[in-house]
Amino acid sequence: MEEKYDFGLVGLGVMGRNFILNVADNGFSAFGHDLDVEKVNALKNEGNKAHKIDASTSIKTFVKALKQPRKIMLLVPAGKIVDSVIESLLPHIDRGDILIDGGNSFFTDTDRREEELQKRAVNFFGAGVSGGAKGARLGPSIMPGGSKSAYAHIKPIFEAVAAKYDGEPCVAYLGPKSAGNYVKMVHNGIEYGLMQLTSEIYDLLKKAGDFDNDEVHNSFKKWNEGRLQSFLVEITSQIFKQEDDESNERLIDKILDKAKQKGTGKWTSQNAMDLGIPVPTIDIAVNMREISALKSERTAADKIYDRPKVATMEKAKLEKLAEEALYFSFIVTYAQGLHVLAEASKEYGYQLDISVIAKIWRAGCIIRAALLADITEAFEKDKDLPNLLVSPNFVDKVQGSVASARELVAFGAKNGIPLPGLSNSLIYFDAYTTTRLPLNLIQAQRDYFGSHTYERLDKEGIFHTEWESK
Amino acid sequence: MEEKYDFGLVGLGVMGRNFILNVADNGFSAFGHDLDVEKVNALKNEGNKAHKIDASTSIKTFVKALKQPRKIMLLVPAGKIVDSVIESLLPHIDRGDILIDGGNSFFTDTDRREEELQKRAVNFFGAGVSGGAKGARLGPSIMPGGSKSAYAHIKPIFEAVAAKYDGEPCVAYLGPKSAGNYVKMVHNGIEYGLMQLTSEIYDLLKKAGDFDNDEVHNSFKKWNEGRLQSFLVEITSQIFKQEDDESNERLIDKILDKAKQKGTGKWTSQNAMDLGIPVPTIDIAVNMREISALKSERTAADKIYDRPKVATMEKAKLEKLAEEALYFSFIVTYAQGLHVLAEASKEYGYQLDISVIAKIWRAGCIIRAALLADITEAFEKDKDLPNLLVSPNFVDKVQGSVASARELVAFGAKNGIPLPGLSNSLIYFDAYTTTRLPLNLIQAQRDYFGSHTYERLDKEGIFHTEWESK
Repeated sequence: MEEKYDFGLVGLGVMGRNFILNVADNGFSAFGHDLDVEKVNALKNEGNKAHKIDASTSIKTFVKALKQPRKIMLLVPAGKIVDSVIESLLPHIDRGDILIDGGNSFFTDTDRREEELQKRAVNFFGAGVSGGAKGARLGPSIMPGGSKSAYAHIKPIFEAVAAKYDGEPCVAYLGPKSAGNYVKMVHNGIEYGLMQLTSEIYDLLKKAGDFDNDEVHNSFKKWNEGRLQSFLVEITSQIFKQEDDESNERLIDKILDKAKQKGTGKWTSQNAMDLGIPVPTIDIAVNMREISALKSERTAADKIYDRPKVATMEKAKLEKLAEEALYFSFIVTYAQGLHVLAEASKEYGYQLDISVIAKIWRAGCIIRAALLADITEAFEKDKDLPNLLVSPNFVDKVQGSVASARELVAFGAKNGIPLPGLSNSLIYFDAYTTTRLPLNLIQAQRDYFGSHTYERLDKEGIFHTEWESK
Repeated sequence: MEEKYDFGLVGLGVMGRNFILNVADNGFSAFGHDLDVEKVNALKNEGNKAHKIDASTSIKTFVKALKQPRKIMLLVPAGKIVDSVIESLLPHIDRGDILIDGGNSFFTDTDRREEELQKRAVNFFGAGVSGGAKGARLGPSIMPGGSKSAYAHIKPIFEAVAAKYDGEPCVAYLGPKSAGNYVKMVHNGIEYGLMQLTSEIYDLLKKAGDFDNDEVHNSFKKWNEGRLQSFLVEITSQIFKQEDDESNERLIDKILDKAKQKGTGKWTSQNAMDLGIPVPTIDIAVNMREISALKSERTAADKIYDRPKVATMEKAKLEKLAEEALYFSFIVTYAQGLHVLAEASKEYGYQLDISVIAKIWRAGCIIRAALLADITEAFEKDKDLPNLLVSPNFVDKVQGSVASARELVAFGAKNGIPLPGLSNSLIYFDAYTTTRLPLNLIQAQRDYFGSHTYERLDKEGIFHTEWESK
């Protein structure tokens, strides 16, 4: 009898192909499925090399080739395609088989699918995969959620293919139901924030410090050797070196400033609002992608308004301020995202361990950063830390860098350089650390016009006043 | 045969009772319904006075008492209660009757209800009512959407009861389906922004200018006599005069700084994100209510961090800057909200006329302001204005006030006074008026790690680069 395969993968696009090759590299036999003959043939050819790998356009052949309980991962675009792939698998799979959605599915979709599949005793995992194409090939961070007992079957494969940080695999069982998709969504929300912040720093270096592309490259490169070490800072430094094949100028200067989005950042913001958790740095990152898309409107508006002449700042001073402000705002962005996860854990019953999440983000994923080792430690020390900002491990880091954020935000405001992420990180910090905010006025206004009542500082209870007009 | 009533109203809470008395004041006979006997009796007693008014706890008696086509308004809390009231009315009403939901229903609920009722040939309106309890009694702003032909039946009553601006009623047919609820939702989003802004200005006056409550009162009072004239500025000035009955101190200092929310601001932010329209001032207003709710966390964090010593500013100078910054940021907040409406009109087929909306907001509603007369004019001149900021009527207003916003935002950042609404209004302005934003870097990053492609400045097309690591 023919020997069956350890792992199946549906969807042989860039991510899927890379992921399955990664699985095969790690000694597991793997079988791929796609309706596209070319993609299937391309993968079959890989089988002629070292790997035990095969593929088929037939879903029946695919399913039959797999060992039971079957472990079938879907790497297809989120949305209806996931449902239709599941639909096409159902007639062929058996009780106890395991389906794993590796895409960025919206978490409520995952909950719905898991519930439906449970009725047929099929295990369903939402497992976000981060790291891009390269990560999928060489070691991504994987964020699985679903049935804890079924996880034992996929654990060896996931731990083998995941990125390693000091030998520890960047994957862990995160929680029931859509826990994995939710964590991946917030990962991407943080990613939106960090990317926005790097873009602002680039803008500042250029406009206030007159940095050329080599100098921007050098600053990010230097920063990447210090406490800001991170994938995004690293690739940012590399981006400023990239030549444009056609013009022999730097490519960065040829790229249109309209940023697209695929929805996970927006979902993070929207869902954080449902949970009542503030994530202003992520919100404004979403907003900025929207504003960037209004290119023709911006161009028209720019012609109408005078802009302040930008003061210049001494390069070395600016570079130092920028490093500190970026460090500060990176910390605040992680703090916001992790706060959402803590609340989501309560609200949706995920039982998340934030230290485990920080741990599996230390390598492989897009938001990997030296900071995540510190964050892991902070939450290992105190699992119920209400906010990263109040961790004893972070107070000095924040206190030591906030002054530079203040200076640059003030500079941006005065000089007409929008620093949306930096500003909102500072606003978040200043508001979160203020005992008395002026929102007593908002409660007074709400009671005045809508009798919505208010609470008092000096005693318990709910109060309403018949306000006088004066 | 007994004479039937012109208008029926379900839900005799504060808003409902006041609205039906307003209807009766204007010469229409009106019949109320509520399951609460006390509320029904209270309204029946009003009938002994001048009004032709009656009420009943029986839904059957209520419906039978009304002239056909019946005009029945619901003023009950948004959500399932609206559905159950409709359910209870259905056995008794007839084809051609008109139901009007006057609450803050979510717009997709209104669309669903309208569709269901259409099958029974019952007309359904979502008609947001703004103005609080006093407005309902003396003249609110009403925002109806639904069947245009059926609107003829309710128009005389609504025009009679609505607030008047220079004799023009603050009500108009806005568009099909949920147009009315949607407009009311965005009205409330703007309201969130404006309230947040007034609270920040109060904070600044107090912390940077050492204003006492009388001085804050005086500033807002003076501003209300100028171009900032508005309901919210007016009541803010009054709030600072209000004595606390118990302590003989000012009430404002006794009110807890935790602001509640009922969801319409959040919905505006969330839906604006779905539409891809930036509303950062509204987003941050929602965020600040969330942060305000974290009172004990804020208190704990405040103890951990040093705060910059606040520089003092000369009172007269601060007052002038504050007026200008508030004016600037009010304009930006309206601009954001109206931008959402324009996009929603396209997306949902509302066929909104922004000038008509601005017109009916000039009196009666919570966001009424002298500015709305200017806004009406701007959109009457150019119905397709892409953004209020580029209206020739507004350029000088904005150009003349933005410098003060810059100065105060910079001051807040340096001195640790969070000015979230002001900052985000400035960010919006600076980003919206910038031809080249640094989001080319974000597109480069997305292409680098995810092969998401990019566009170029110098030619059409979609491009991808195999980025080099250096």
